[in-house]
Amino acid sequence: MDDNITLSLEEVRTLSESTLKKHGFNAQHAQAITDIIYANQLGDCHSHGLYRLFMCVESIKSKRANGTAEPTIIDAGPAVVRADANDGISLLALKAAMPTLIEKAKHNGVAALAINRCFHFSALWPEVEMLSEAGLAGMAMLPSHAWVAPAGGTRGLLGTNPFAFSWPRQGKDPFTFDFATSQFARGEIELYRRAGKPLPEGVAMDEAGQPTTDAEKAMNGAMLTFGGHKGSALSLMIELMAGPLIDDLTSKESMAAAQGKHEAPYHGEIILAFDPHLLSGGRVSENNNRAERLFADVIDQGARLPSQRRQAAKARNLARNAVDIPKALYEDLIKLKQDA
Amino acid sequence: MDDNITLSLEEVRTLSESTLKKHGFNAQHAQAITDIIYANQLGDCHSHGLYRLFMCVESIKSKRANGTAEPTIIDAGPAVVRADANDGISLLALKAAMPTLIEKAKHNGVAALAINRCFHFSALWPEVEMLSEAGLAGMAMLPSHAWVAPAGGTRGLLGTNPFAFSWPRQGKDPFTFDFATSQFARGEIELYRRAGKPLPEGVAMDEAGQPTTDAEKAMNGAMLTFGGHKGSALSLMIELMAGPLIDDLTSKESMAAAQGKHEAPYHGEIILAFDPHLLSGGRVSENNNRAERLFADVIDQGARLPSQRRQAAKARNLARNAVDIPKALYEDLIKLKQDA
Repeated sequence: MDDNITLSLEEVRTLSESTLKKHGFNAQHAQAITDIIYANQLGDCHSHGLYRLFMCVESIKSKRANGTAEPTIIDAGPAVVRADANDGISLLALKAAMPTLIEKAKHNGVAALAINRCFHFSALWPEVEMLSEAGLAGMAMLPSHAWVAPAGGTRGLLGTNPFAFSWPRQGKDPFTFDFATSQFARGEIELYRRAGKPLPEGVAMDEAGQPTTDAEKAMNGAMLTFGGHKGSALSLMIELMAGPLIDDLTSKESMAAAQGKHEAPYHGEIILAFDPHLLSGGRVSENNNRAERLFADVIDQGARLPSQRRQAAKARNLARNAVDIPKALYEDLIKLKQDA
Repeated sequence: MDDNITLSLEEVRTLSESTLKKHGFNAQHAQAITDIIYANQLGDCHSHGLYRLFMCVESIKSKRANGTAEPTIIDAGPAVVRADANDGISLLALKAAMPTLIEKAKHNGVAALAINRCFHFSALWPEVEMLSEAGLAGMAMLPSHAWVAPAGGTRGLLGTNPFAFSWPRQGKDPFTFDFATSQFARGEIELYRRAGKPLPEGVAMDEAGQPTTDAEKAMNGAMLTFGGHKGSALSLMIELMAGPLIDDLTSKESMAAAQGKHEAPYHGEIILAFDPHLLSGGRVSENNNRAERLFADVIDQGARLPSQRRQAAKARNLARNAVDIPKALYEDLIKLKQDA
């Protein structure tokens, strides 16, 4: 068992906001970022919780990300809002544009938000859950860095390209998923490398384009997509939808721009919102029941809905008004805060 | 090598239209269906070419599908068009609604078409390519019958739930993919069963929910999704997007309604259209170049774009103004036509 430390929910927020502000994020950015870090930590999603403060700070220290950037919100069409993050972290742009996205989706039936020129470090599930909280279905996707080979290829070209979806449920936690289209997340391979453990088959190839289970070689070679040529096709779609479609970078362009630095990747993001009312011809409650029967049928056969574990952790942590984090992480975070 | 027969492109069209008309489809339906059967046959997609005439005829013989149904096109919101197929095959409804979908996407930036109460037998790639031909990106998805178990489950619940995407390319065949979210297509398992060949691992489970490579047991058990829990999550999303979101059936409801008959599945479909002009802030040509660099990088490393094989077959068959089909299929088709 890890050596953990317990923080109150208030302490999670305070630690995040104060660290961000000390390193040069203004109050608006610090709050938008903290909202998301807090939501992840509350659900015991450690990899996207307080741990991500290191990446945020790195992004601002390298002087590439702007901690006081004011996002520009552009009404780009009846069903399109574009949010130029102006080199800030994506989350303030997201927060600023979200009310317009929701309004446009409810008015038109479907709408899109394109976030441009942003640094992006966060999980996508909180973003699509902003939509399901508003009674809409939501989809989000974005590129990253060119670490992943297309099916049949030998070199990194695609990002780990996450895809997320959320569906609103009456009086219940939404149905939500958020996954990387790479077989493994980049950080997972890094953990295998540190532990000196062999990777499973089918996760990566070496620099020569040959299958490898050596995590060191995998880091210098290329990762594989999940699901063979189907996952590869989806990943290419994500490159297009969150890149050229919205006038922003592909994973290869994003990686070239970063020049090997460890800050958050810089690129665009697309978020789609769907209004069940207009799309169902007003028959929302019958169709909510239909969706609930589908979910019940999943659970009845012993399967799990995608976010059940996180949602259970959230309920548990809310009830005790606290979360546990590894003691070593906490000590590093205190150092990070003092290191401003 | 199979014993093949060569048909002129004109013969493909005539055989399809006349067979459909003889069995009770009106001229509009026969033409809408033939356009799609022809496109598949032209690309050597045999499983969705003339072979599908058997399913069309079955659907009308069982008296469930209506061969003269007039689709009702409903303007359901600024960015939503709904097409009620009124129990006809989906393709006439699709054809009737497509101009509105394109117009709405170009005006709003993004738009959705919901097709309801349709029999659906066709591949999705021709549907999304109607959008890329109009300069739009397109996405389509639909349920089928509850043959596929969710990840961690033991029983059929999800459909083979196809997902298709197309991206317009200047002066080139579009980038298109169209895949089932099940590991195998239903028909593939049927082929293994007939041939008495064992299935690969990871494709199916038996009635008791245990992994099996026995195709007979798989037909009575459940199929698996591609890509483990990620593919399963995507398949659930497709159930929701093309079912409850648009007031139509889930795969389980569709299978119950069919009562074991071999006609085309009856349910809904959602098609999404995205306008590169509005979404990119008018910078279409720079972003077309960016997308082309992505495709070139795929091909340069020896990988293939998803539809390259079909597009090469199409070019070849257009040049010789003919296609080859198995002789046995041709003989069965002639019988089908006479059997009206």
